[in-house]
Amino acid sequence: MARRPFFRPTIAAFVASLSLLTIFALSHHHVSPSSSTSNAPFSGAPRPKIYLYDLPRMFTYGVIESYFLARDPIHPPLSNSELRYPGHQHSAEWWLLADLLLPDRAGSPVERVIDPEEADLFYVPFFSSLSLIANPIRPKTDGATPRAPAYSDEDMQEKLVSWLDGQKFWRRNNGRDHVFICQDPNAMYRVIDRIKNGILLVSDFGRLRGDQASLVKDVILPYSHRINSFKGEVGVDGRNSLLFFMGNRYRKEGGKIRDSLFQILENEKDVLVKHGAQSRESRRMATHGMHSSKFCLHPAGDTPSACRLFDAIVSLCIPVIVSDNIELPFEDAIDYEKISIFVDSSQAVQPGHLVSILRGVSTEKVLQYQHGLKEVRHYFEYDDPNGAVKEIWRQVSSKLPLIKLLINRDRRLVKRNMDGPDCSPLCSGQNGSIASH
Amino acid sequence: MARRPFFRPTIAAFVASLSLLTIFALSHHHVSPSSSTSNAPFSGAPRPKIYLYDLPRMFTYGVIESYFLARDPIHPPLSNSELRYPGHQHSAEWWLLADLLLPDRAGSPVERVIDPEEADLFYVPFFSSLSLIANPIRPKTDGATPRAPAYSDEDMQEKLVSWLDGQKFWRRNNGRDHVFICQDPNAMYRVIDRIKNGILLVSDFGRLRGDQASLVKDVILPYSHRINSFKGEVGVDGRNSLLFFMGNRYRKEGGKIRDSLFQILENEKDVLVKHGAQSRESRRMATHGMHSSKFCLHPAGDTPSACRLFDAIVSLCIPVIVSDNIELPFEDAIDYEKISIFVDSSQAVQPGHLVSILRGVSTEKVLQYQHGLKEVRHYFEYDDPNGAVKEIWRQVSSKLPLIKLLINRDRRLVKRNMDGPDCSPLCSGQNGSIASH
Repeated sequence: MARRPFFRPTIAAFVASLSLLTIFALSHHHVSPSSSTSNAPFSGAPRPKIYLYDLPRMFTYGVIESYFLARDPIHPPLSNSELRYPGHQHSAEWWLLADLLLPDRAGSPVERVIDPEEADLFYVPFFSSLSLIANPIRPKTDGATPRAPAYSDEDMQEKLVSWLDGQKFWRRNNGRDHVFICQDPNAMYRVIDRIKNGILLVSDFGRLRGDQASLVKDVILPYSHRINSFKGEVGVDGRNSLLFFMGNRYRKEGGKIRDSLFQILENEKDVLVKHGAQSRESRRMATHGMHSSKFCLHPAGDTPSACRLFDAIVSLCIPVIVSDNIELPFEDAIDYEKISIFVDSSQAVQPGHLVSILRGVSTEKVLQYQHGLKEVRHYFEYDDPNGAVKEIWRQVSSKLPLIKLLINRDRRLVKRNMDGPDCSPLCSGQNGSIASH
Repeated sequence: MARRPFFRPTIAAFVASLSLLTIFALSHHHVSPSSSTSNAPFSGAPRPKIYLYDLPRMFTYGVIESYFLARDPIHPPLSNSELRYPGHQHSAEWWLLADLLLPDRAGSPVERVIDPEEADLFYVPFFSSLSLIANPIRPKTDGATPRAPAYSDEDMQEKLVSWLDGQKFWRRNNGRDHVFICQDPNAMYRVIDRIKNGILLVSDFGRLRGDQASLVKDVILPYSHRINSFKGEVGVDGRNSLLFFMGNRYRKEGGKIRDSLFQILENEKDVLVKHGAQSRESRRMATHGMHSSKFCLHPAGDTPSACRLFDAIVSLCIPVIVSDNIELPFEDAIDYEKISIFVDSSQAVQPGHLVSILRGVSTEKVLQYQHGLKEVRHYFEYDDPNGAVKEIWRQVSSKLPLIKLLINRDRRLVKRNMDGPDCSPLCSGQNGSIASH
């Protein structure tokens, strides 16, 4: 606890920005709390109580420091106000921790408790995605001696699980009531089998086996969008390009389709497809492209999900999703058919197919999609008090009845029937192995 | 709707009894609704909206009439006030329908809507368990000509599904948002594969395959207890017998263990085990036995669950559960380890084992179990406004986020990946077949 004051300025700024955003967010309120009368529209279900682990600092803010140190070993130590999460699509881990640290969390679907004995759920705020990339691909040493020992993500993962193994509440229910964020598809890969009983906050299931994660137990998070939201109105004026895509042309696995898509699209006159890696300049170009096109292509990357989808949504650029195994965030609340167009991969690579579909969409229908996008885009804003953070906690809350059932059931189970069909697992792999018992 | 007035007297009596019960129930309130303040303990989640199908009368009250007619074909037609559900452990189907028909449902976890377009869920109130036994095993014909054509449960099941097939909302989401009650393990057996996408309200999974039902999608209901609740206080005075069991000694499948249990228990001096079938007289004896014993044995029947468990709970007689594959109602809310003793079947049949466990339980511990039973027994009272009916709707409500997710996901899914492990199904059978897609 002694370390908290160190971050006050940052947290204070965060609180201030939230207050400001509240004003803008009021129009987004779909469900506004009101008193429970005899015609109460609310279920009366209690808010789940969540306990925030006070992890050793190296697992949270320490990862940020390691990240900056590894990139600039001769830079003076970080001052308080400089401590911030690097601009990154995986910043959900920062936002969720910041949210739980807020003094007033009245509107949240989860209540933070200080006594772990009262808790329904336990949040483990390890910055696992940033940890994965704390070391840059090409470290800048410039001959200078690094001030910190080399950072090892694998070590950190092992240390985290060792630390948890020492915690009574981690052992109590075999981790079922613990919540982990591992948004990068490779985050936590070394220890995933030791934490898989928990609720995992992930981007997709691309690198996870059926016995590790499932729609039943886990929550799909949106990436933080990396380009600016479109501030203009719904409309087709200024959106003269039909389809836009900018990104890496060559990817592994499901992303192999990208090269084929480039080939069939790059000579269409009102289609903009560009090969480009992440950079400030490419983000500027992508912003322009997404804000001036009617449709934005979202092909699979190395895994089915990608940040680009959320860039498109906040740009009111109708996503064209060519990623057959994609899982989408908050899909109980959002009907993605109303805000995007799904095209089967095998169809999408037929010459002429994609553009003929898109050219067939009437302006009226385009406006309908845009209205739909405008209605749901708050779900993808991490700094909106009625946005992604709130929705993630709501999703986590909705897992609680089943988690509690399984915890109680585990306690009293006298024998596990492994012979007949078994409906108890949260997910079964296709090989028939029983998972997550 | 023209048929409703016919039943007013019965519904009115039901409402009156509920009002009376409210007075007694106030002490049970664990979560009482209050206004949503800044420290709101409630999640603010909206109540799910449920639509009650106005089924043709033959599927609901008509089943009751058929039941009575089949038993007494020369009896004069039923008068309004005579129309009631027969005393039976499967009366949940009666109570749930009666609840949805109540004019004031303010305290319920689900809101009834009259417009199906507004509904999240659709309730199909077919009395499927009563339908199964509408024809008595030995029909009393007495040479008289039956007034009604022979009742056929299988026909009724087929007719129900045909009727549903004509409903737009049934077809819309492949039945995922439909709720069926099939409490008897054999209820709906003929059409189960055509309704398995829905939320099934069942007693256990004894006769259901892994691709038909699961803890994730479905709800385990308690049987209606058949003996009177114990009105006395917690205590061991007057409970001189150690263990009580009365029921059929010979059952199929998991129930085969009963004969072995009889053999090792029938000569213990403070143990009462009696072979007896259902009758008014045997219920009187069972009431006495359960109200005057510390422990009540609950061996598996033909399927893992049995009515006796709930008789024991309302008798404050500590259940001794010997049924390895049992699933228990409301297990997210109830920790059964605190109110009952679980014994592995293979252990339970070792001579001397069961009684030595039970004799080892201190009086203090017995009182603890009894206090636990007293605290939760309201969950098993179908006529308690804070009882089984309310809890069943809460359980159904908790399935809604996943159901909605799967409905939206179904709509936009362009391709189903059947090659890799798949986490989407609500339940997979052990043969790896993907279920309930």
